[in-house]
Amino acid sequence: MASTEQLRSTLDQYVARFNGGDADGWAALFAEDATQEDPVGSPVNTGREAIAGFYTTMLANFGAVTLSFPHDPVIVDHEAVMFLEASAGAPGSQVRIPLIADVVTFDADARIRSLRAFFDPASITPV
Amino acid sequence: MASTEQLRSTLDQYVARFNGGDADGWAALFAEDATQEDPVGSPVNTGREAIAGFYTTMLANFGAVTLSFPHDPVIVDHEAVMFLEASAGAPGSQVRIPLIADVVTFDADARIRSLRAFFDPASITPV
Repeated sequence: MASTEQLRSTLDQYVARFNGGDADGWAALFAEDATQEDPVGSPVNTGREAIAGFYTTMLANFGAVTLSFPHDPVIVDHEAVMFLEASAGAPGSQVRIPLIADVVTFDADARIRSLRAFFDPASITPV
Repeated sequence: MASTEQLRSTLDQYVARFNGGDADGWAALFAEDATQEDPVGSPVNTGREAIAGFYTTMLANFGAVTLSFPHDPVIVDHEAVMFLEASAGAPGSQVRIPLIADVVTFDADARIRSLRAFFDPASITPV
């Protein structure tokens, strides 16, 4: 069993490594056979390698993407909803997603077992 | 299949009937055999009668509870995350939950098949 503090640390590292461009370090926060669906409705990535591939493709498509916590994550037992704000794009052509809700489950080692990102594409706005 | 507009209407009615004290009308938004877990970690209520019972008990314990949308719900296919703010209690002793994330699935008739409410009890604050 992982403590709430350990799960919170995983989510903090999720944002820190994501923002730091650390594809492998970020993917290492997931369990070996984790599933990831971002956004919900797109194909599910299964396994760390596919999840790292998602990240690399995203960086190639959107340039640096920066995440932050507009609200603290809600963690209950080995589940969480993590609220994120995202900004992306080069200066002058930046866009912002004001609110993403990531529905997350964890394994006993505080690794992410599944992550599903809910956000409304219509909410993506120029900064 | 239900349209996004129908699912959004169900969520609008969820808030309107909840705030209106309409236990049966509110429970009728759920499928006959729906499951409801509010908050996540508490016992799961299964079926409309148990769900209406949850509502009646809540009113008896907390008095009128008022929900509002701090952000639009995110609806993808037959799933949604609904963001809610809640206030409860008599004037002078009111409390507020600033952000609840309800993870919802729907059936083909736009009824709620499952609802799981994530919020942090530590976020409940006096108004």
